[in-house]
Amino acid sequence: MRKILLAILFMAACGMQVSAQQNLFVAQDIESAIVHDDNTVTFNFKAPDAGKVQIAGDFAEKAEGQHIGGMVGAGLIDMAKKAEGIWTYTTKPLKSELYSYQFMVDGVPTLDPNNVYVYRDFATLSNVFIVGNGQADLYKVNKVPHGTLSHQWYHSDGLKTDRRINIFTPAGYEQSGDKKYPVLYLLHGAGGDEDEWVTFGRATQILDNLIVQGKAVPMIVVMPNGHAGMEAAPGESSWGFYKPIHLKEGTMDGAFEENFHEIIDFVEANYRVQADKNHRAIAGLSMGGFHAMHISRYYENAFDYVGLFSAAVMERPGQDKGVYGNFKETLKKQIANGMKLYWIGIGRDDFLYEANADFRTRLDKLGLKYEFLETEGGHVWTCWRTYLSVFVPKLFKE
Amino acid sequence: MRKILLAILFMAACGMQVSAQQNLFVAQDIESAIVHDDNTVTFNFKAPDAGKVQIAGDFAEKAEGQHIGGMVGAGLIDMAKKAEGIWTYTTKPLKSELYSYQFMVDGVPTLDPNNVYVYRDFATLSNVFIVGNGQADLYKVNKVPHGTLSHQWYHSDGLKTDRRINIFTPAGYEQSGDKKYPVLYLLHGAGGDEDEWVTFGRATQILDNLIVQGKAVPMIVVMPNGHAGMEAAPGESSWGFYKPIHLKEGTMDGAFEENFHEIIDFVEANYRVQADKNHRAIAGLSMGGFHAMHISRYYENAFDYVGLFSAAVMERPGQDKGVYGNFKETLKKQIANGMKLYWIGIGRDDFLYEANADFRTRLDKLGLKYEFLETEGGHVWTCWRTYLSVFVPKLFKE
Repeated sequence: MRKILLAILFMAACGMQVSAQQNLFVAQDIESAIVHDDNTVTFNFKAPDAGKVQIAGDFAEKAEGQHIGGMVGAGLIDMAKKAEGIWTYTTKPLKSELYSYQFMVDGVPTLDPNNVYVYRDFATLSNVFIVGNGQADLYKVNKVPHGTLSHQWYHSDGLKTDRRINIFTPAGYEQSGDKKYPVLYLLHGAGGDEDEWVTFGRATQILDNLIVQGKAVPMIVVMPNGHAGMEAAPGESSWGFYKPIHLKEGTMDGAFEENFHEIIDFVEANYRVQADKNHRAIAGLSMGGFHAMHISRYYENAFDYVGLFSAAVMERPGQDKGVYGNFKETLKKQIANGMKLYWIGIGRDDFLYEANADFRTRLDKLGLKYEFLETEGGHVWTCWRTYLSVFVPKLFKE
Repeated sequence: MRKILLAILFMAACGMQVSAQQNLFVAQDIESAIVHDDNTVTFNFKAPDAGKVQIAGDFAEKAEGQHIGGMVGAGLIDMAKKAEGIWTYTTKPLKSELYSYQFMVDGVPTLDPNNVYVYRDFATLSNVFIVGNGQADLYKVNKVPHGTLSHQWYHSDGLKTDRRINIFTPAGYEQSGDKKYPVLYLLHGAGGDEDEWVTFGRATQILDNLIVQGKAVPMIVVMPNGHAGMEAAPGESSWGFYKPIHLKEGTMDGAFEENFHEIIDFVEANYRVQADKNHRAIAGLSMGGFHAMHISRYYENAFDYVGLFSAAVMERPGQDKGVYGNFKETLKKQIANGMKLYWIGIGRDDFLYEANADFRTRLDKLGLKYEFLETEGGHVWTCWRTYLSVFVPKLFKE
């Protein structure tokens, strides 16, 4: 017996497969999503008996109207079968970016068993990889000082429940004595939750990297859950391990915005915060942009910086009660109170492009000065990560 | 255009599929791993063209010598194909537990596309679900006050790098003024990292639940990375999104143990901690049990509570330098200094069972009094979650 144990320890010490558990599941003995120095990427997948294996990825050229196997927005690439039953494909050099993909194995969506990096977008998982040598170097964990990410819970009297909130404090926060920090409130989209900016958004990496490069000032980033009907992200609440569903109540009905002061109060009570308008920013993507617009208007003198990323800012007839009421008057008030930055970013292919153009016309009429960035791309993370990395360096510089 | 936008918002409001991104990947329109009230569980998987679909799960009866398709330790169950191309299987009532599984689709390991709850064990992912009505109710996020989990980084002079560490503070910590808390240092196994006790270990849920039930005192739980050669868990370090490999250096070579005082110092400098032996516990599973045993012996007067869960406590000839030297003498010193609890747990089917029996004989000879728990099961999380939930209530009660 002792010999067996020593053999196992020896195997472990030599880098062989000895899992924590007694190997419930063993990975295929190949690597995949290998990012080469020239920014090409090789995928491998072992399936000797499969008839057809494809990659559904956001790096693939999308054929017009392509909509196969439940995948939209991602192109499909055929993989080639090698003699050993391994399917393989190498891309051309890719632009620096964080990419998502799955395999389609005889039409069935299949995660890559040789890539353990998987993010959830609403009700689906996809594998991810990062191609560096450019913009996406900001999305990597680099050898730099790192901030702290805390998954915390605050109590909401208004929503009558405890709610989960992710809070990033910059590197050095714990060791900085009485120093107080500015705060960015960063809001997610309709399919997301408090974890979305941490996973696909790479917010903590972007902040770590911009701060160490001297491009952003050290700041706290607060990422709450924007669905007023939810306690927390799927799997993190008392709802258990359920299949994510969109909420019928508590999403874009005003309850999140009306109770937002509870989040500010919680942050300012529990963190060393510069608790004034000069040092508060709010930004969000899609539904989160809608939230940021309304919250900054409703709390008309609370934020000096507002960021709308592909924001859902269309007019919604009939939506004029509570926090949504007196739209023009409160916006005028917000303008009169003064702001340092009202920032709008949108991709040319975004389905909200026209709504944002309409919204800018309304702002122009009201005399609200904003910065505007139009980029390539649609309603996708490629844009939102870029917008965050452009927006954050503009904050809290006096 | 406005009509389209309103339609989309209407869809969102009505709970239809509008993802944050423009639906890169769409889930299959079925549910799977549905846990019924009677503790049976139904799996569904859509694959019209597959020839054979099986479930590889740790809840399945394992045939003798079964070792199919790279899966060991998990049994295989054939699913039945319904007319619509959906494969299905319903279990018999299962014992309350957190279970893991994958599908095998014509022999290819495939994650369930209709279950987004996935944990990584070393280099593989598996789907998970929880069957309640028993022990595993402790593993659920219940509607109780929740502690905070922080992913933080400390600097190690000894290991010459910043290192990631997970720290749980109990509910009420932030609001408790000057109150100081006891600390449990909780260590992972050879295939794991600082995230392992958070995912498969369900440590934060176990602590939340035991504390609210009055069975455990509020405590801080510190989960470091036990591989001295690593900065952080795979994907969380400057190594990027690589395929997890076992370390050749820095694992069980003494470096982690010898530098453990840096972790204690960091925790005691940054948290409100009762910084004395009475209020320090250390426990770990497998390699982490080996670490806990050696650390508590090396820092001979630092811990009043020691927990060895399926610990790798075999004698290792030739391993007698540095922290591993003077085994008997230091253990005698540790005993002479006094301890409140030395706790050992092991499963009858564990490959380390005999090594633990030998170790207990050595302790008996030295006169070290320990508590011992022998359970069903092997070298698996079922045991370690149980051991944690038995060990934690014994801590810091004076």
